[in-house]
Amino acid sequence: MNHLGSELGSVCIIGNGLIGGSLMRDLAASGVRVFGSTHSEAAAAQAVAEGFEVSSSLTDALLRAEAEHALIVVAVPFDAVGSVLDAVAEHAPSCGVTDVVSVKAPVLELVAQRGMLKRYVGGHPMAGTAESGWAAAQTGLFEGAAWVVAYDFAQECSGAGEHVPESWVRVFAQVCRMAALVGSEAVPVTARKHDETVARISHLPHVIAEALAVTGDRGGPMAQSLAAGSFASATRVAGTRPALVRNMCETNAAQLVEVLDEYIALFEDARATLAGDPPSMQALAEAGHTAHERMSARSGARRESVSPVAVSSRPVMRVHPGGPGWVEQLEQIEALGGRVEVF
Amino acid sequence: MNHLGSELGSVCIIGNGLIGGSLMRDLAASGVRVFGSTHSEAAAAQAVAEGFEVSSSLTDALLRAEAEHALIVVAVPFDAVGSVLDAVAEHAPSCGVTDVVSVKAPVLELVAQRGMLKRYVGGHPMAGTAESGWAAAQTGLFEGAAWVVAYDFAQECSGAGEHVPESWVRVFAQVCRMAALVGSEAVPVTARKHDETVARISHLPHVIAEALAVTGDRGGPMAQSLAAGSFASATRVAGTRPALVRNMCETNAAQLVEVLDEYIALFEDARATLAGDPPSMQALAEAGHTAHERMSARSGARRESVSPVAVSSRPVMRVHPGGPGWVEQLEQIEALGGRVEVF
Repeated sequence: MNHLGSELGSVCIIGNGLIGGSLMRDLAASGVRVFGSTHSEAAAAQAVAEGFEVSSSLTDALLRAEAEHALIVVAVPFDAVGSVLDAVAEHAPSCGVTDVVSVKAPVLELVAQRGMLKRYVGGHPMAGTAESGWAAAQTGLFEGAAWVVAYDFAQECSGAGEHVPESWVRVFAQVCRMAALVGSEAVPVTARKHDETVARISHLPHVIAEALAVTGDRGGPMAQSLAAGSFASATRVAGTRPALVRNMCETNAAQLVEVLDEYIALFEDARATLAGDPPSMQALAEAGHTAHERMSARSGARRESVSPVAVSSRPVMRVHPGGPGWVEQLEQIEALGGRVEVF
Repeated sequence: MNHLGSELGSVCIIGNGLIGGSLMRDLAASGVRVFGSTHSEAAAAQAVAEGFEVSSSLTDALLRAEAEHALIVVAVPFDAVGSVLDAVAEHAPSCGVTDVVSVKAPVLELVAQRGMLKRYVGGHPMAGTAESGWAAAQTGLFEGAAWVVAYDFAQECSGAGEHVPESWVRVFAQVCRMAALVGSEAVPVTARKHDETVARISHLPHVIAEALAVTGDRGGPMAQSLAAGSFASATRVAGTRPALVRNMCETNAAQLVEVLDEYIALFEDARATLAGDPPSMQALAEAGHTAHERMSARSGARRESVSPVAVSSRPVMRVHPGGPGWVEQLEQIEALGGRVEVF
């Protein structure tokens, strides 16, 4: 076990779908003591057969977490989060808690309702595939990905001139170490900013893919025959199971609706100028190209590096959780879209 | 030179950008006698230095085309098509003419205005890259792609109970042979159906990519940091030069506006249900997934074949141009989105 692993301690993962299962594989491969539970007897049996400690009893897993002072990772769909938090409150009252749900403000609200803010740090690894379930879980899924770490509670304490509780600082450091252990980069963001951002760069592309697939399909066999690269790229994520797309988009509906309005307004402007005489798409074509250059500057750096060592395109700041001015440092990193390394 | 090449005869390509230049490279590699012109002295010199017969004089190229009974391929942007056709009328009055412009009905109209319908067959190879110009031209660009062949004039003759003129039949066969020579598949389509289809599967994805790039970019550094695969896929074609995007979309504005209205309506429906209580994206998520399965069934077959011989996913029909019932056969192929092989 390496240095990061030794400081992390035990990890208890509730839910073993694509994200929870992949996290379990990576942590186990790093030598971390990791165990968990799933509501599916079959999935638990499959994981056990592969040598993982996965119970079909949520209570058993949480009792063990409490005994081992484990970090609890809630890796269930949003609809199940409330009941899992209730069980955590009952069976693991002293454990730190994080999650991997794709929306952060609604989870934060569930946590606040249960009086668990002092030991909860929201998380969201920006990784995934179109597949789901334990069968799709794989090692290396999080390599190079952003692992969002929501620090709202620390910001509120700091804003009120209060000290951030030790319990919270400890969980924050654990989540950052866990993210680093699986090869991803801890990006501090407030829940609201996270939810608005993923509406723009993840949920909107899903809505787009669905709507474009429908519009293309209405063109019948000729559209099937002539569709080429640009159509395939833009509709790729429409291959995701509808239930997963609904879950993401509906959970973040408030933010997504605002972004949809922005996007529809751009379309209506373009429609108006294209219907003009002469037709023009000058404004959108030029703004879109400029925006694309800016957006791809960073991801381009991530993808196209020829260095054998993966080079991150995110600015890094080293932070000592709980140290002087550390919350202000997180705010600076957030403004840059940067990553944090804890020491 | 193989059988197809020997039946094709000389080819004169006007314009040597990405499409015209790539076509010249492929035809030359197949042993076809190919020459052409470009308005750019520098591009002509570059092509000549590489061993190609490219003149900076349109007149010279057309005079040679007339002398050699060459097939003339108009490979210039739409804005320049009218003046090239005028020059063809003056200097190459007996040559067959085709084009590679991404919109077909407006070109057909320019041809009709000049009384050249009997010797013109519209074409559109569904291939390209985000790059442009002779420098980006490459061999193999058209491999496996659809090469749209517009047969409106034949359909009109046939509908009026008239014989399709020999001159037109000959050009149709030449265009199909040229498409086959460069590895692409001749797909017969009427101009109007082509323009509606490319609005759906090519021009709409370009508008989408621009608008999504702008919406994502408004999220600032955090959006740059968190954007992952779904965003990159859906905005890829926003890397195309704005002038090229404008040219495609503005030339096909009438069809594109109709498709934009369909697409915007889907978005507004989804926006309404996502703003509801509870928020729902059920209808669009399910319709989009189904449409994606249908649309990717064919392109999937194209991409994922493990056969060493490329297997086409387009149904094929062998047709003898000018033979009994051949125009009805083209109509049947069009209804299937299929391809034609001429004999």
